[in-house]
Amino acid sequence: MFITFEGIEGSGKSTHCKHAAEYIASKGYEVVLLREPGGTKISEQIRTVLLDKDNAEMCVECELLLYNAARVQLVYEVIAPAIKEGKVVVCDRFFDSTVAYQCFGGSLDKSITDTVNAFAAQTAMPMLTVLLDSDVERGLDRAGRGDRMELKSIEFHKRVRNGFLTIAKQNPDRFFCVDEMTIDEGKKIIERKLDEVFA
Amino acid sequence: MFITFEGIEGSGKSTHCKHAAEYIASKGYEVVLLREPGGTKISEQIRTVLLDKDNAEMCVECELLLYNAARVQLVYEVIAPAIKEGKVVVCDRFFDSTVAYQCFGGSLDKSITDTVNAFAAQTAMPMLTVLLDSDVERGLDRAGRGDRMELKSIEFHKRVRNGFLTIAKQNPDRFFCVDEMTIDEGKKIIERKLDEVFA
Repeated sequence: MFITFEGIEGSGKSTHCKHAAEYIASKGYEVVLLREPGGTKISEQIRTVLLDKDNAEMCVECELLLYNAARVQLVYEVIAPAIKEGKVVVCDRFFDSTVAYQCFGGSLDKSITDTVNAFAAQTAMPMLTVLLDSDVERGLDRAGRGDRMELKSIEFHKRVRNGFLTIAKQNPDRFFCVDEMTIDEGKKIIERKLDEVFA
Repeated sequence: MFITFEGIEGSGKSTHCKHAAEYIASKGYEVVLLREPGGTKISEQIRTVLLDKDNAEMCVECELLLYNAARVQLVYEVIAPAIKEGKVVVCDRFFDSTVAYQCFGGSLDKSITDTVNAFAAQTAMPMLTVLLDSDVERGLDRAGRGDRMELKSIEFHKRVRNGFLTIAKQNPDRFFCVDEMTIDEGKKIIERKLDEVFA
């Protein structure tokens, strides 16, 4: 059981991810809560390179490979073993972020992105992806603009948001979209979806 | 004009690379001497992650993506612009090392390796690759065994050497193989080859 949360900066992913993990645990499941990029020692080292705002010269091809290097190590060390042991894995971002940020945001070719994403995900396929939609300016205001990705232009982040909405439309069976609302309203809607999934 | 040097640990690549760069420069060419992984600020940060001997748990899929992340940033920032400006680029390791180490050494699938290598190399295709062959035990004795790759087993390094010899056989027009010999003998043989190439 593998559940991912997606959305732009400041859309409330971390809050809802954490709440969802606690909610699933309250049902008696063992839950592993993760964030991308990161979640292993090596993946966190790669995260540091990716988000360092002094690395502004990084090309989008390098981004694609670094995000997926961090991803495959996380799948190998944590996600695949946890799924095998029957645990529920909840992850803040997964491969949809790569399509939204690098393809829609950064104009990278979709075909190579899909190939590298599939290679890195190995057998880890989300069965539910919660998309938290949000207005771009409000999201960035909430997130602050500290790291390299957050510092990209408003236009970039608008393309990313449009990317997420497009991916969700293309994968209606996997995606559950949550429009912008209060945190508490969002929590309730996601709880009802989780009730359904874990019924 | 793009020339690469390949070979196992301790085969004399760095020495011969440096000498070849000086020899080509003495003919009046502007030469850029590089090493992989590395050669840009970001690629050197990735090199640190790759070679850290405390990262022994790194999976071969992560290695493939990290080596190519470092590579594509080097191509984007340095190799492609240098070739465009008519300079000669001499590089200590390039994509053949990924095939030798990750596929032959680490049993990674050849097809995805070729796909990711080609994506990272972009338009940078070596026109000459000098393979410095060497006995594995003698090579490792010369190199020392300090970093993560050097610390892998003798059997691993034997598969890597066999990999290089196989790739060279499959690409006879691009490869120039230099058997184990004294440094001075090697320098002379490589100089004659460069005379031919730059004639």
